[in-house]
Amino acid sequence: MPDNRRFLLQRRPAGTPVEADFDLITEPTPELKPGEFLIRNHYASLDPAMRGWMDAEGNYMPPIPLGDPVRATTIGVVEDSQAEGFEAGQWVMGLNALEDYSVGVAGGFTQPIDPSMVPSVTNYLSLFGAVGMTAYFGFLEVCEPNEGETVLVSGAAGAVGSLVGQLAKIKGCRAVGIAGGPEKCARLTEKYGFDAAIDYKGKDEEALTAAIADAAPNGVDVIFENVGGAILDAGLMNLNLYARVGLCGLISEYNTDPRGARNLWQLIVKRAQIRGLLVADYVERFAEGGAQLGQWAAEGKITIDEHIDEGLENAFDSFMRLFAGTNDGKMILKIA
Amino acid sequence: MPDNRRFLLQRRPAGTPVEADFDLITEPTPELKPGEFLIRNHYASLDPAMRGWMDAEGNYMPPIPLGDPVRATTIGVVEDSQAEGFEAGQWVMGLNALEDYSVGVAGGFTQPIDPSMVPSVTNYLSLFGAVGMTAYFGFLEVCEPNEGETVLVSGAAGAVGSLVGQLAKIKGCRAVGIAGGPEKCARLTEKYGFDAAIDYKGKDEEALTAAIADAAPNGVDVIFENVGGAILDAGLMNLNLYARVGLCGLISEYNTDPRGARNLWQLIVKRAQIRGLLVADYVERFAEGGAQLGQWAAEGKITIDEHIDEGLENAFDSFMRLFAGTNDGKMILKIA
Repeated sequence: MPDNRRFLLQRRPAGTPVEADFDLITEPTPELKPGEFLIRNHYASLDPAMRGWMDAEGNYMPPIPLGDPVRATTIGVVEDSQAEGFEAGQWVMGLNALEDYSVGVAGGFTQPIDPSMVPSVTNYLSLFGAVGMTAYFGFLEVCEPNEGETVLVSGAAGAVGSLVGQLAKIKGCRAVGIAGGPEKCARLTEKYGFDAAIDYKGKDEEALTAAIADAAPNGVDVIFENVGGAILDAGLMNLNLYARVGLCGLISEYNTDPRGARNLWQLIVKRAQIRGLLVADYVERFAEGGAQLGQWAAEGKITIDEHIDEGLENAFDSFMRLFAGTNDGKMILKIA
Repeated sequence: MPDNRRFLLQRRPAGTPVEADFDLITEPTPELKPGEFLIRNHYASLDPAMRGWMDAEGNYMPPIPLGDPVRATTIGVVEDSQAEGFEAGQWVMGLNALEDYSVGVAGGFTQPIDPSMVPSVTNYLSLFGAVGMTAYFGFLEVCEPNEGETVLVSGAAGAVGSLVGQLAKIKGCRAVGIAGGPEKCARLTEKYGFDAAIDYKGKDEEALTAAIADAAPNGVDVIFENVGGAILDAGLMNLNLYARVGLCGLISEYNTDPRGARNLWQLIVKRAQIRGLLVADYVERFAEGGAQLGQWAAEGKITIDEHIDEGLENAFDSFMRLFAGTNDGKMILKIA
């Protein structure tokens, strides 16, 4: 049996995760039982939601048990199989863990994928994975954008945010993105087609509110929110009547006590709504989303960046990029 | 011309209003111009939203100009008229001010009312006014309650909250109310038919969260929110999947810097929504709401309490009851 390096959760992080919360161990891969198959993981998706799974209360998923490897969506190749429908050499994708080898079960969440269908197999973790589906269904179904409206996206240089901006342009909206630093802001307008970019760094709520008002002179009809805190509050101060806020993430609050949304009164004044969204609600429509995103990508209307770090030994540093904002695109860890 | 006592806004309140922010003056009533009529105000509605009108930024209404009488909905009798359609002796209702006499204009917001249609003319400020319409449309349209669901109401002993609880029961829901103090809580279950009452006094967010979980063992499907702060956050921790929060008011925040809603992440986990509501959106359907509420009231299915204080000289103390929670029912000031 091959050795299996596994990136374990050893301790629940108190606020910002530190390296000592995790451990990289090596153990033999387990013997397969009937109905199981062994996956050689090649790539893992690193996502902000994984931070919530590390807490004792979990979120929409149960917490990762202490001593277990960190749960993650991976793509890999079946190395050995005692399960019907999964043969050695077959590419698969599933909710596994940050480890060299995972054990899949027939009828579980691991499904075959076809690398020949996509420019890069990693696209299954970006455009054709949770990221793409979150942008597609979260923006189009939850935010209900109309032509001519103004769409504000926070975390706009991130994987989901950059896609939402491009979808907003396809739908004939004005797209305003918020990101950290001049490089990211340049990427928003030059690469993703945002009409305006706002650098949140060095701006308090009041300055952010003014910057949004400048960039959205007709007000904001839709917010696609990934960040929370002062950025959400500044957005709320610019809402138009009957505006819709799609709440995708609150990454500013995952490692700290929340500042709290202080401008909820604007929802009353503007008869606006905040609605939480989770891609899992749209699983049955993923084929529809994938087909449409694939078509737009083929037509050159959308592009997605992938930030691929190498090596399971770098799992911690790569994961922490998500909170430092030092990734340029969908954060992916290359395992093999 | 009769003397006109007027309760003026002299200074914008900094946080909690103090008596020195206002002044009661006496001046002659103005000469009527063609198209105008003089209203002898008998009753004024005192509402939390008026606090927002006192701030420089206003809310959904422009701010009350300094030196003007405090804007309020009043009912009264036409004393003199130079306007077609308004004759002396006619009862009217409109957005006027806290003063003995207001001047109305034909084609303005003041409309005739018929006291013979209601048990008490003050009902036009409660069940058949903004309070009743807010409960009716805000709960039924924005919160979309379904039979068998659990409805949580904050500010449940207040005018709107007590009605929402009764509407929840009519719709076959479990109604859980939050109010301050044992007397109010007793009123919720004994008079308004709530299934359970929670006294928020002396409870922090954690204790409130546990109390709601006890009173709503199947979770909360609808929140009708009048208060905000820790009460809203505790409610959010008990949401069911796809729950709806109708945001009617945030009275805990009107006189102070907001604490902020810290549990918005629950909206993602539960794919729930918060939607602001304002009764003005339903003006064209008020007749429908009034007819239905009137029928239920006649059948003994709903009751509304009115807390009537007397005397324009007591306007400040009466208004402040709304924030101290010392009113028992719709707060009305009897002017004459």
